[in-house]
Amino acid sequence: MASFSRLIRFLAKDGQIYYGDALLPSGVHDIAQVTQARVIQGDIFGQHRVTDKIADVKLLLAPLARKDIGTVRCLGLNYEQHAKESNMPLPKYPVLFFKPVTSIAGPTDDIPVSKTAQEGEGLDYECELVIVIGKEAKNVPQSQALDYVLGYAVGNDVSHREWQIKRGGGQWGLGKGFDGWAPFGPGIVSSQVIPDPNALRISTTLNGKEVQSSSTKDMIFGVAETIAFLSQGTTLLPGDLIFTGTPQGVGMGRKPNLWLKDGDHVEVSLEGVGSCANRVVFEKPGPKL
Amino acid sequence: MASFSRLIRFLAKDGQIYYGDALLPSGVHDIAQVTQARVIQGDIFGQHRVTDKIADVKLLLAPLARKDIGTVRCLGLNYEQHAKESNMPLPKYPVLFFKPVTSIAGPTDDIPVSKTAQEGEGLDYECELVIVIGKEAKNVPQSQALDYVLGYAVGNDVSHREWQIKRGGGQWGLGKGFDGWAPFGPGIVSSQVIPDPNALRISTTLNGKEVQSSSTKDMIFGVAETIAFLSQGTTLLPGDLIFTGTPQGVGMGRKPNLWLKDGDHVEVSLEGVGSCANRVVFEKPGPKL
Repeated sequence: MASFSRLIRFLAKDGQIYYGDALLPSGVHDIAQVTQARVIQGDIFGQHRVTDKIADVKLLLAPLARKDIGTVRCLGLNYEQHAKESNMPLPKYPVLFFKPVTSIAGPTDDIPVSKTAQEGEGLDYECELVIVIGKEAKNVPQSQALDYVLGYAVGNDVSHREWQIKRGGGQWGLGKGFDGWAPFGPGIVSSQVIPDPNALRISTTLNGKEVQSSSTKDMIFGVAETIAFLSQGTTLLPGDLIFTGTPQGVGMGRKPNLWLKDGDHVEVSLEGVGSCANRVVFEKPGPKL
Repeated sequence: MASFSRLIRFLAKDGQIYYGDALLPSGVHDIAQVTQARVIQGDIFGQHRVTDKIADVKLLLAPLARKDIGTVRCLGLNYEQHAKESNMPLPKYPVLFFKPVTSIAGPTDDIPVSKTAQEGEGLDYECELVIVIGKEAKNVPQSQALDYVLGYAVGNDVSHREWQIKRGGGQWGLGKGFDGWAPFGPGIVSSQVIPDPNALRISTTLNGKEVQSSSTKDMIFGVAETIAFLSQGTTLLPGDLIFTGTPQGVGMGRKPNLWLKDGDHVEVSLEGVGSCANRVVFEKPGPKL
């Protein structure tokens, strides 16, 4: 049993960084609007407690510190309508790839686009439900899989289609793993608060206009099935993240294609969790030294 | 400057687990034969020192503890002769994929083959030079790339060809990431001891018979070029590992194919470093409860 309802990590007005349990005013469901939280002390995956100390939130950070994040797994082509817009057959097994931990960023961080990632075309967004594993899981049956979940967040699996598809010899690693290309948050909602993760509205807006809008019920491999499958012969660790794929509406699936540009604002949202709103920032060459 | 020549992690005869600097008798170059080491105290990527305490080695462990390992990157098709045996064109860019940290194992650990990984055909070995990153690297030029290396080890990128190629929708994740499918070691030889990592003999024996034999000079993207390329827009962290691809001679490249079987002994070796010798163990179903 998680000890919190909505886990956040934040810079407080007192200048300290804390884990906390978000205090949301009645009627507010987007954690991004949090202003206060109960401070959590201890190891978030071990001994810890929600204290009575209330802190004022200045800035939300990625809801897990880098040292608390394990392996970052991602699924491709895991929504029926997205597989169709990609002209790909429905997968028989989960399509598994990974991102490095350095791709993880906070819910309002800029998405940096390095000179390398400015080569070629195809900078794209992907709103995704993110599973946070809460305890070691190996060979778990689907019926018990949700017991291993700490909670859920929303993330953006930022992707560069040319690096992903044309330049990596078929492997997607080069086009998915740049620094800051997996913002997630705004917090982690306990699986006790969200008993059915496959009945949530999920969406993206680009500069205020909706470009993805679907439900997690369109997932081909649902949350429980994904955890059970991926745990076969494989230990999932506390702090491992699973980005569970994106619905239709990505820039690559549109005619004409809709690629992210310098200065764009992209916001991904998940019902009951909230939103991550990030600005695309193309890196300029530094001054010659 | 690394403070050690040959970093090992080991269970000592006193029952403790230590990091140490291997003491090899004159004329011995394979770290797997180490019997004594100087104990290292402190954080291996931070403040630490090689002490005067000498401990007796009972069992070599993976040369980095799990908490000290970051992201595990791997290159595919990175030896010319291997790309040819795979009937694949030479890659224009490094072919990047990842393994989870739970795939890492020690130099003499068994390679467990779960019931899932016993489905279909294609269990295979891949001897590889493993780069261990020693300090944060981002946008480093090739000429300085080796300065960011802690040292080198040898590893086995154990692979299941059916899960890797046919079942994962083209992504290799499912066939590469099972628990214990990346034994590495036997220690990490400092980059000061190995100034040129692209001039080393690398080989595999299966049940005592040589099946791979090549040199790291056949790499398409050498060690310095690989680090420089992968650090573009991407921070490599201390403790990140890069498996740099395998030469020709894998089971998939043979006619008829040569797949690993239950009980096989597979040993991967790298000149100046030593060898990892692992037994393949098919998991049996447990007793019905």
